[in-house]
Amino acid sequence: MISAAIVGGTGYTGIELIRLLSAHPEVSIDLLTSRSEAGIRADEIFPSLRGISDIVFSDLGQDTLAALQKCDVVFFATPHGVAMQQAEALTEAGVKVIDLAADFRLQSLVEFEKWYNQTHACPELLKSAVYGLPEINRDKLANAMVVGNPGCYPTTAILGLKPIISLQNNKSERLIESRIIIDAKSGVSGAGRQASLALNYAETTDNFKAYGVTGHRHLPEIEQGVEQLLASQFSQRIRFLPHLVPMIRGMLSSIHLELTEAGTAIDWQHEFETNYASEAFIDVLPAGSYPDTRSVRASNRLRIGIYQNNERRELTVLVVQDNLVKGAAGQAVQNLNVMFGFDEKLGLNAAPIVP
Amino acid sequence: MISAAIVGGTGYTGIELIRLLSAHPEVSIDLLTSRSEAGIRADEIFPSLRGISDIVFSDLGQDTLAALQKCDVVFFATPHGVAMQQAEALTEAGVKVIDLAADFRLQSLVEFEKWYNQTHACPELLKSAVYGLPEINRDKLANAMVVGNPGCYPTTAILGLKPIISLQNNKSERLIESRIIIDAKSGVSGAGRQASLALNYAETTDNFKAYGVTGHRHLPEIEQGVEQLLASQFSQRIRFLPHLVPMIRGMLSSIHLELTEAGTAIDWQHEFETNYASEAFIDVLPAGSYPDTRSVRASNRLRIGIYQNNERRELTVLVVQDNLVKGAAGQAVQNLNVMFGFDEKLGLNAAPIVP
Amino acid sequence: MISAAIVGGTGYTGIELIRLLSAHPEVSIDLLTSRSEAGIRADEIFPSLRGISDIVFSDLGQDTLAALQKCDVVFFATPHGVAMQQAEALTEAGVKVIDLAADFRLQSLVEFEKWYNQTHACPELLKSAVYGLPEINRDKLANAMVVGNPGCYPTTAILGLKPIISLQNNKSERLIESRIIIDAKSGVSGAGRQASLALNYAETTDNFKAYGVTGHRHLPEIEQGVEQLLASQFSQRIRFLPHLVPMIRGMLSSIHLELTEAGTAIDWQHEFETNYASEAFIDVLPAGSYPDTRSVRASNRLRIGIYQNNERRELTVLVVQDNLVKGAAGQAVQNLNVMFGFDEKLGLNAAPIVP
Amino acid sequence: MISAAIVGGTGYTGIELIRLLSAHPEVSIDLLTSRSEAGIRADEIFPSLRGISDIVFSDLGQDTLAALQKCDVVFFATPHGVAMQQAEALTEAGVKVIDLAADFRLQSLVEFEKWYNQTHACPELLKSAVYGLPEINRDKLANAMVVGNPGCYPTTAILGLKPIISLQNNKSERLIESRIIIDAKSGVSGAGRQASLALNYAETTDNFKAYGVTGHRHLPEIEQGVEQLLASQFSQRIRFLPHLVPMIRGMLSSIHLELTEAGTAIDWQHEFETNYASEAFIDVLPAGSYPDTRSVRASNRLRIGIYQNNERRELTVLVVQDNLVKGAAGQAVQNLNVMFGFDEKLGLNAAPIVP
Repeated sequence: MISAAIVGGTGYTGIELIRLLSAHPEVSIDLLTSRSEAGIRADEIFPSLRGISDIVFSDLGQDTLAALQKCDVVFFATPHGVAMQQAEALTEAGVKVIDLAADFRLQSLVEFEKWYNQTHACPELLKSAVYGLPEINRDKLANAMVVGNPGCYPTTAILGLKPIISLQNNKSERLIESRIIIDAKSGVSGAGRQASLALNYAETTDNFKAYGVTGHRHLPEIEQGVEQLLASQFSQRIRFLPHLVPMIRGMLSSIHLELTEAGTAIDWQHEFETNYASEAFIDVLPAGSYPDTRSVRASNRLRIGIYQNNERRELTVLVVQDNLVKGAAGQAVQNLNVMFGFDEKLGLNAAPIVP
Repeated sequence: MISAAIVGGTGYTGIELIRLLSAHPEVSIDLLTSRSEAGIRADEIFPSLRGISDIVFSDLGQDTLAALQKCDVVFFATPHGVAMQQAEALTEAGVKVIDLAADFRLQSLVEFEKWYNQTHACPELLKSAVYGLPEINRDKLANAMVVGNPGCYPTTAILGLKPIISLQNNKSERLIESRIIIDAKSGVSGAGRQASLALNYAETTDNFKAYGVTGHRHLPEIEQGVEQLLASQFSQRIRFLPHLVPMIRGMLSSIHLELTEAGTAIDWQHEFETNYASEAFIDVLPAGSYPDTRSVRASNRLRIGIYQNNERRELTVLVVQDNLVKGAAGQAVQNLNVMFGFDEKLGLNAAPIVP
Repeated sequence: MISAAIVGGTGYTGIELIRLLSAHPEVSIDLLTSRSEAGIRADEIFPSLRGISDIVFSDLGQDTLAALQKCDVVFFATPHGVAMQQAEALTEAGVKVIDLAADFRLQSLVEFEKWYNQTHACPELLKSAVYGLPEINRDKLANAMVVGNPGCYPTTAILGLKPIISLQNNKSERLIESRIIIDAKSGVSGAGRQASLALNYAETTDNFKAYGVTGHRHLPEIEQGVEQLLASQFSQRIRFLPHLVPMIRGMLSSIHLELTEAGTAIDWQHEFETNYASEAFIDVLPAGSYPDTRSVRASNRLRIGIYQNNERRELTVLVVQDNLVKGAAGQAVQNLNVMFGFDEKLGLNAAPIVP
Repeated sequence: MISAAIVGGTGYTGIELIRLLSAHPEVSIDLLTSRSEAGIRADEIFPSLRGISDIVFSDLGQDTLAALQKCDVVFFATPHGVAMQQAEALTEAGVKVIDLAADFRLQSLVEFEKWYNQTHACPELLKSAVYGLPEINRDKLANAMVVGNPGCYPTTAILGLKPIISLQNNKSERLIESRIIIDAKSGVSGAGRQASLALNYAETTDNFKAYGVTGHRHLPEIEQGVEQLLASQFSQRIRFLPHLVPMIRGMLSSIHLELTEAGTAIDWQHEFETNYASEAFIDVLPAGSYPDTRSVRASNRLRIGIYQNNERRELTVLVVQDNLVKGAAGQAVQNLNVMFGFDEKLGLNAAPIVP
């Protein structure tokens, strides 16, 4: 049994972490901190937790760090910029850190500061931080002290491209043309638990729109994923356009690729199935079927559909996940499992909720 | 052509007024005031108005009153307590006032102050103000200078009870027992256009709840409607419970009544049809059919279903309306039509939007 | 480990049973029958089950009964009228039966035949069948061979009334007046998994309506619950009006009661808390808070809010549940746990899904 | 006043036509035919029409054609393949035909038969039929006897590309690279008014998915639009992927284009504004703002947002419309206005419904 703390935890990522960790047989949530909600039981804010967890939000003031240092692992379910303030003191005390915000996602200080408008507080630690995508970084995660939990969109994009870029890296020529279009769609919970006119029910329901055309923070993270994580030998130009779907949870990324002549010779359905054969949470659907977001609702599974049209040189990859689970809290728990040597599926076995 | 001003107008009631008045052949919106949005075109805030209205929000400061005094009618689409500050200066200048908030709904100062936590600014004017329910107050409205536009729930409740109380008033004995249960359900737009965690899409979708069990401001308004407007000769005890439905527009009030022996002798379907035979906006459905909220979406119609079960002594009245139209802006325009002697349907002919 | 079969299982109740039983540590789903889907894997119809269950729908024709007779328990997730055809042969073979349809809910043959338009196939067995509401019938369930799993609405109604009727039964006078109004609201999944124009997305979304005013099959079941199950010493007249809410899962019943003078002397909040103190799945909310349906989404919990207004003699009880879990499949699993002597919470511990 | 008939009319396109034509000052709906609903008032099926239209569905059997021949114009709101059976007899009688299905959309018999699996009944008439996109074919429509009303997706695609292809046609070199990605999203009403499990509320809500990856009937129509209607001098390869959004009405097409060096020299915002300056129903949004589907709800407007990124050579065009209005019935009325010489906006002035 390991001792975990959650810093923050009043957002959707936070409640999802509490929900998942409460059912984890090897984790005890011993500390839940929040300045604004100190003294209040979590189940007062989230009545769904009544009978599930007795934990109380606390604010220990100057003693907070000392209390966190007694835990085995600290999750940061906070705004960007919080985890990096405390990560060094924690890791020096031997505590592992999993940040669900963006402090440890981008390896490039320049990119981080450009997109997040702040100076990084611990650039040295950033170098040793591991990008928390177990399907790619499993080995590094096993020994990581600091993990940057991926953004939701990048998780779908990078895992949707992995088998393609990996295979291409083994070839002497391109299998896909340079440009990759990622047309992505997310449920509203991805925007967080906040009072916001733009997120008001009457503003978002029966409505659909794009956003971030001129630049979204997840674009450099996807580019980093393709260049560094997947180490693409050929340059790939990524185009990323997110949309807001009137649904609570769920994310679908439609990846449009153009096959080269060589690329048409590949059986991509087979390639994806092979590449992900041993992954517990990656489900490559049978040819001809479509992934829908509800098929992963409240679960850590990510499903992929592959559609190859050699005549038109089109390869389409559709990726779905629950943005709050595989796209956030579930992936954080999966990372924890790898970091502490547990079975990767521990606490993440629950079936999706349909309907 | 009459000259109209809208004070406020950045909320859902405001945009609905702009939408309806823009299509009204006898009204010109000449002034639209807002402190927070001064200088901004209405269609910047509500792009749906692009090509429909060129009007700009203005804040004339100390000159506002003078400008309003040049109009024929001023609508207040403001929070409670604003209209009563300006109503006297306007009526003295001969300007008619239609308040879509609560300042002129409750005739009792005591009740007003109890439920709205403020002192009434113009109690004298309140005495001559007319409750803006044309189906009951048509004659008074014709000469009214100040109109209190009814609350959305009271509109359904009072119109749902009118034929019953009216008939009972003509009898020597009760037709319904004392207790009337109004179990009401409203779409989310009724809570207004505001940044609010409780109204966040992810909080309200796929969710249903009651609120205001211990007291809702519309209860005294419904009670006043039964006692004064309908002048019930027998005392009726009203119970009112509102609920929040995950839909944008629409309101359904389920009115549960218990018939007396005498009440079972009445053909209530016939009674409702007769009572409302000449009303353009009140639609009594054929026996056996159910009103649903979408059947009045974006329209000023209010539909009523009657279900009589003599064996169980039950009379159920189901009333639907669009809370933003017959429950707010549409009724305000209907009041304007009566106040200025126009055909009551002018500008309110549009068909509901289905699906 | 017990061996379970599910007859039917292509509906929402069926997939929910598969989801819950797949996570149950003491149950193995060994047989899943369906004539229409024979030979097809369950996860082809419900891709959410991919990686969760490998089970295949089968149709054994004449051998079906023999195969079912080898199980320990058979769930019927079928239309009304199927379970009663096979129940005798199963119980004679020592197999326990849990029917999620209505065959064993109504004890009165007359009522059954009136409301379900069919002759009961095994009236003798019906006499010994137990109504599967563990919070009331726990003892009888422990030895039951045939269980009629309650309807969704009756579950909320009966459990919402239990502490009141129980206390009243201990008194010499009424605590509540005769008439009880149950104004109930259900999500659309309650109508089942079917092709239906009335259930088409574009017909039900952004829409709200009542149905069944003139008679709903759950009314006699609620009446039976009050008269027989709760054994009310005073007659109570039940009025029941269901509504359709544009949400997938969830049910809220608003129970309107009128307190007698004696009834106002009771602290009903305390009474409910005491009555349900030892129940794992019944959660009486703290005074002043409201239950919303999402707080029980995908869980077997049922939450109750109590609102007492002595001045107006009003007692309001609000009950929420997930209609597919506590209102159907979850309750069936809870019944199984009682029938087989397992911890009642086994397999039913999962936290609700919020947001 | 012209006399119109609607054949079919029990679907969403049909009710939308009835709604729009009922408010059209120059059109009288004199005949509404349906075999299945003959004898039934339209407002029995669509109660929203109560008080709006008294029309009754009729089935005149062998006399139907003669009755249709007495009208000035006949709308076919029928499945594919119906209009072409009657078009010749109608045009020979001098009656104009507007088909809202696909019989007269594709000029190529080969393509028609490939995608719609039927032989065309009147290939000669097809040659003279006009594709009903007034913004491109206004002149031809003025004299057209048969109009093929465009598909919903093609309307957004072709109008979203028109200014680009038009400008490119005036240049000696490409402005955009060959490949055009149209990632489109539609509300559920686009699938029609039908009983269908896949369209059941509980199946589609809180869910998102793609469909038609391997081929959708609107692809050849879009290709025809680019090649013939816009007469692109350079070949453009179109890729089209539709998705289903959990909303009733609304369609957004995200068009991803890659600019050539020459293309980056163009100010595309200006180009679109200029190109559409005189169009009543095409609204090019100011730079930097996003179109959302609700901003055109229930209206014939189509709004376009332009996003140019020269550094990345990206041009993104976002197009929204109401799939039932500009994407179907509204465009049909617009076509009627052009065909009969009315002001193009007649009957189509209503403001969108927001919220």
